[in-house]
Parts: sequence; C-alpha cells; structure tokens
Amino acid sequence: MSIDAPETTRVPVALGDRSYDILIGSGLIASAGATLAARFPGRAVAIVTDATVGDLHAPALEAGLTAAGLRHHRITVPAGEATKRFAMLEEVVDQVLAHRLERGDLVLALGGGVVGDLAGFAAAIVRRGMGFVQMPTSLLAQVDSSVGGKTGINSRHGKNLVGAFYQPGLVLADTDVLDTLSTREFRAGYAEVAKYGLIDDPGFFSWLEANWRGVFQGGKDRVHAIATSCRAKAAVVARDETETGDRALLNLGHTFGHALEAATRYDGTRLVHGEAVAIGMCQAFRFSAKLGLCSSDAAERMTAHLKTVGLPTELAHVPGGVGDVDGLMAAIGQDKKVARGKLTFILARGIGESFIAKDVDPAAVRAFLAEDLARG
Amino acid sequence: MSIDAPETTRVPVALGDRSYDILIGSGLIASAGATLAARFPGRAVAIVTDATVGDLHAPALEAGLTAAGLRHHRITVPAGEATKRFAMLEEVVDQVLAHRLERGDLVLALGGGVVGDLAGFAAAIVRRGMGFVQMPTSLLAQVDSSVGGKTGINSRHGKNLVGAFYQPGLVLADTDVLDTLSTREFRAGYAEVAKYGLIDDPGFFSWLEANWRGVFQGGKDRVHAIATSCRAKAAVVARDETETGDRALLNLGHTFGHALEAATRYDGTRLVHGEAVAIGMCQAFRFSAKLGLCSSDAAERMTAHLKTVGLPTELAHVPGGVGDVDGLMAAIGQDKKVARGKLTFILARGIGESFIAKDVDPAAVRAFLAEDLARG
Repeated sequence: MSIDAPETTRVPVALGDRSYDILIGSGLIASAGATLAARFPGRAVAIVTDATVGDLHAPALEAGLTAAGLRHHRITVPAGEATKRFAMLEEVVDQVLAHRLERGDLVLALGGGVVGDLAGFAAAIVRRGMGFVQMPTSLLAQVDSSVGGKTGINSRHGKNLVGAFYQPGLVLADTDVLDTLSTREFRAGYAEVAKYGLIDDPGFFSWLEANWRGVFQGGKDRVHAIATSCRAKAAVVARDETETGDRALLNLGHTFGHALEAATRYDGTRLVHGEAVAIGMCQAFRFSAKLGLCSSDAAERMTAHLKTVGLPTELAHVPGGVGDVDGLMAAIGQDKKVARGKLTFILARGIGESFIAKDVDPAAVRAFLAEDLARG
Repeated sequence: MSIDAPETTRVPVALGDRSYDILIGSGLIASAGATLAARFPGRAVAIVTDATVGDLHAPALEAGLTAAGLRHHRITVPAGEATKRFAMLEEVVDQVLAHRLERGDLVLALGGGVVGDLAGFAAAIVRRGMGFVQMPTSLLAQVDSSVGGKTGINSRHGKNLVGAFYQPGLVLADTDVLDTLSTREFRAGYAEVAKYGLIDDPGFFSWLEANWRGVFQGGKDRVHAIATSCRAKAAVVARDETETGDRALLNLGHTFGHALEAATRYDGTRLVHGEAVAIGMCQAFRFSAKLGLCSSDAAERMTAHLKTVGLPTELAHVPGGVGDVDGLMAAIGQDKKVARGKLTFILARGIGESFIAKDVDPAAVRAFLAEDLARG
C-alpha cells in the first residue's frame, strides 16, 4: 500500500473474487495515475465525467495518468439526472468502443451518482463487462452510490429501473473535492450518511447529532463519517450483493423518496435525490409511528436532526408541491421494490431499528399519504 | 418431469445456483404453458418475438399460457439482425415495464438468435435482472445462441459488442418448428452444428458426413444432432461461463465470420450469420494450413462437407463481395476477441483439434486474407 498516501483510510468490500477496496482520503485524484498503474498495469482508461466536474478535476487526474504512462480519453456527459437515459448510455458505450478499449481496460467514473451509475452500467455492458473504477466527487456518491455495484439508468416508468449489478475494481474517494460542493449538495449527501445511523447504528446517529458541524466543515470528523458510512454499506452489500434480502434496508426513505423525485420529474432545481431521501426517511418514520411500530418521539427526533442540518423533511418543503395521492401511489407501485403485487417498505421500530416490511397494504400507504399531504 | 412429453430429451447446463435445463423435442411450444406454470408458478410472461415467428407460433404458446393461468403480453420486434440495436432494446425494456412485470416475472424469447439475444439482454437489465426463458425457433438458436447466456446487441463498431452474460432459467427447443424454416436458414444453423465436430469431436463430424441428410430431413437424426450440439456447448459453458478461457473455442470461424458480416453490413439477403461462420471456419482451417498447423487435407475435407450441404465456403461466394483486406482487418481489429493489441483466433491442428491461438501476428492475418481474396 506504499503508493497510497499515509492518511488514506482503506475500507475493503468482501465479495469473493470480486472483492475491492474503497480508499478514502486527501489528494487521491492527483495520485490516481500512480495508484491505477500499480493496481491495473498497462490498462487504457476512459474517463467518464460531466462538464462541471471535468473542468474542476479531470486535468489533475489526466496529468497523473499521463505521468504513469496510461493511455486515457475523456468522455463528457451533461450534468444532471436527465443524463441517466438510454441515449446517453448509447453515447458513452459508443465512445468507449470508438477509443478501441478492450475488455481488460478501464471505464473510470469521475463524478457524482449520475456519472457513476451511467458509467458503471456502460462498463457492465461494453464487451459484456470491462474494468471499472469509481472516483466519486460528491458526498452522496462517496457514501452511497459508488459502493456496492448498483449501476443503471432511469426509465419513463421510474428511477433506476434499468441497470446491472456490476462491482468496481476500486473506489477512490478524494475527500478534498467535497470542498467544491455547494452546501445544498453536501447536505443532500448527508441525508445518506444519517441513513446508516437510522438503519442499524443508533450510536452513529447520536454521534452525528453531536458532531454534524464537523462533518460539514471537513477534517477528521468528515473522514470518520464517510468511512463509517462506507463500512456500513460494504457490510450490507457483502451479505446480500443482489438485494434478495438484507440489502433492501439501504432503501430506507427511498420508496417514498423515488416517488417524490418522479413527482418533481427529477428536476434538481426543485428536489435532488438526497433531499428526496431525507423527506422519504421522515415519511418512513412517520408512517411507522402511524402504524404503531415506533414512537412519535423517534420520528420527531430524527426529523429534528435533519431539519437542524438544513434538509427538507416535509412534503410541503418541496417547491411546486408533489401532486396528489394518486400520482404518488402510481409512482410507488412502479417502484422496483414491489414484489408480486404487495408493497415493500423499509419501516422502523426506532432509531437504528429499521426492518424490511414486505406485506404493506397499499390502502394503508394511501391513507398515510393523504394525511402526510394534509400536514401542509 | 411428468409434465414434459415422454420423447423430450433433457440436457442440463451445470452452473451452480444458475443451472438450468434445455428440453429438446416435439410439441414443446404447445405444452409450454403447463411447463412454465409447473416450474415458475404464478409468474407473468412477456413474450418477445418477431412478426414472422409471432404469427406462426405465438398463438399456440399463448393458448397454453392462458390455459395454465399465466398472465402474458406479446412484444413484437421487426425480424432481422438490424433489430439488435439500442433503440429496439429501449423499446422492449419500456414495454416490459409498461406491462408492470416485476423482478420475478419472465421475459420469454420466442424466435431465433436475434430475438433471443435482444430479449435476454432486456431481461438482464430490467430491474437489474428478471426471469428469462428461451424458446429458440431456428436451428442456429437451438444449438448455439439460446444456450450459454450470451445476450446483447450490435454496435456500429461491430457485432455483439454490447451485452451481458445472463443465463436463462429454462430453454425449450421445439424441434417441430424447424420444419417452418427455409432450407437456407436451416443450412445456416447446420454450420454451427458442424462446428461442434470441428472443435473437439471428430467422431461427430464423421457422423454428420454420413448422416447430414437425416438431420435436414427431421426425426431422430435431427434430435441427435441438436442434443449433441447442446451437450457440447453446455460442457464448454459450464467450464468457462464468461469466456476467460476455453469458451473462446466456440468462436471457431467467428472472428473471420464477424468481419464478413460487418463487410456485408449485416445484410441477411447477402449473408446470414451461419453462412458467415461456414466461410469463417473454412478460412480458419485454410489459415491453419497456411501456417503449417494442420494438413491441407483436413481443410479440404471440412470445406467439402460444408459445400456438400450447400453452404458457402469461399469469400467469392458472398454476393457483392466482402471488400478489401484493409476493411476486413479493421473489422477484425474491433472484434471483441482482441486482447491487448494481439489478435486471438481459433485455429486447428486437424478436424476436432481446434485450439485458441492468442498471439496471432496481424501481418500473418493480412497476408492470409490477401491470398484468400485472390482465390477468386
């Protein structure tokens, strides 16, 4: 590990012959050329990035790749969720092939969740599977989407309905780049950090309540929060790679959240993914409280923390509204976490006590949504 | 197995928890509803087919599914290789989602290799992987493309450059439907049957030389040839599912063949896949002979047999020609069986003695192609 900077934290993801490392730390973009040359000697690299991130961070990455003697090409896609569609997938696939990359070469995602999901899916399907490296540049991507191998695009029928489980060979999470994020974007990623506490780690949630300012500010609290999140996700993924069981816990807040994203047509000016998850988690706890599964205190406590850091927690916080119950129910019904006509939700018995509820009555969801919309 | 007709031959494909059966026999389309209801109870079925095959065979299949109480929808794509493209993939994916099929439901490919490759790829990526059943209706699909889990579409850079390894849960090969094929189409599939003899089964090749008329005619010789082919392919796939080694042997004739298909722009009126493979296998043997690896006698013997059944064996047999050496070399260079700049070919030391040659000098290929084009 001598090639990695000394302050780098390593989180292994144990998946048999598809195991890989997440390296978290400072300066990893600039040192990526040397890291990749050591771990994947002689591979050509297709860097998939968006215009915003590419301008900021690609030059340092490319300089390192050139210095390490790795052939590289940059493929730039538009920033934003709308990029996760078939036309852009075809465009990326086509450019990777046009650069004559082979099966052993690398597709490298340099960007947030959109770039990682799209580039990972392209890596999964070009030549039926190429090498793949994630370099997540948003907090959300570093703690969530870059880890665990879910890749894909959206469909007009819903978010992430098309894709592949495809593991990267390495994740490099450079914590310096998070300083270039807007506060709104950082907050959105923080919703996923808080999620790991809410799922099964009440101690981590309490730590966040006490130390969230440090996470936003940077330094060791931030690294601790990211590494804890990655370890939590890696453990779940190692237990259940393809989401036939436990992994569904990671969807806490996501069934409601995806419906909100659909209701706002994936318009990031109104609602970004992490914000939708923040509201969705609050809804999951409110729904759990309404069903008598957890206390109102628990729902109020987690809502208060998310509100304190500046995240939206209510449907009424979404600019332009989220439509009516019928629209939300239709979006929930098409969500891929449906199993044979029943609705599956991640509900909670308390903070850090989430569980998979597979037989949720659609009528109960409908009644809850009507009430939740009426909170105003 | 009481639900399967008594004359059905079963060929198991051993792939651990993704193992499945190939059932080969008469009347399997009409009995498919009962078979599927027994093996996959309660699943909804999206039948992907083309207009030609759908008109001929979908009604019998649908009647059986209805009788067995399985919800089903038909998705019809245009017949022909041009259907293996992104736009049609998106169309199939979209229709599967529009019919609200879930992760455990089935995509069923009813058709030849094009339908199987496209539908299988759609099954692989909708909700990151749905159930998948192959009902191959061409000889080529029954002995080759429906077995082994290769799915995908073409790119403007080459054939099958985009796709997934995705295993079906069941293959139903109804041998009756082959009577609806044209002689040309049956012959094209026969090229892949002969391939199994040429790879590693000289006894089977001799049997084909003696019994090919029976295979074309139908009855027990045909079933024997199909079952032998499926067993051969299943054995290779079980050894090497994702083509990191041995499986490449199945590409005998395919590197040259794909270049010919590219040169004729996948125009099936000029050259269909099996014909390209027939010529490609003859080229592989001629190239092997030129390199001193096998005798000219072996090349002449296998060429003579393919010619006897009516298959093309020479570049000059392709209507409109195949262009020049530069065009063919460019197509070969983009073929996905390239590894780090070297060319990989399946060559032969004799009939039934094929092997993977990984370090073939492009200059040697170029010289061979110039000579082969000059045969006139």
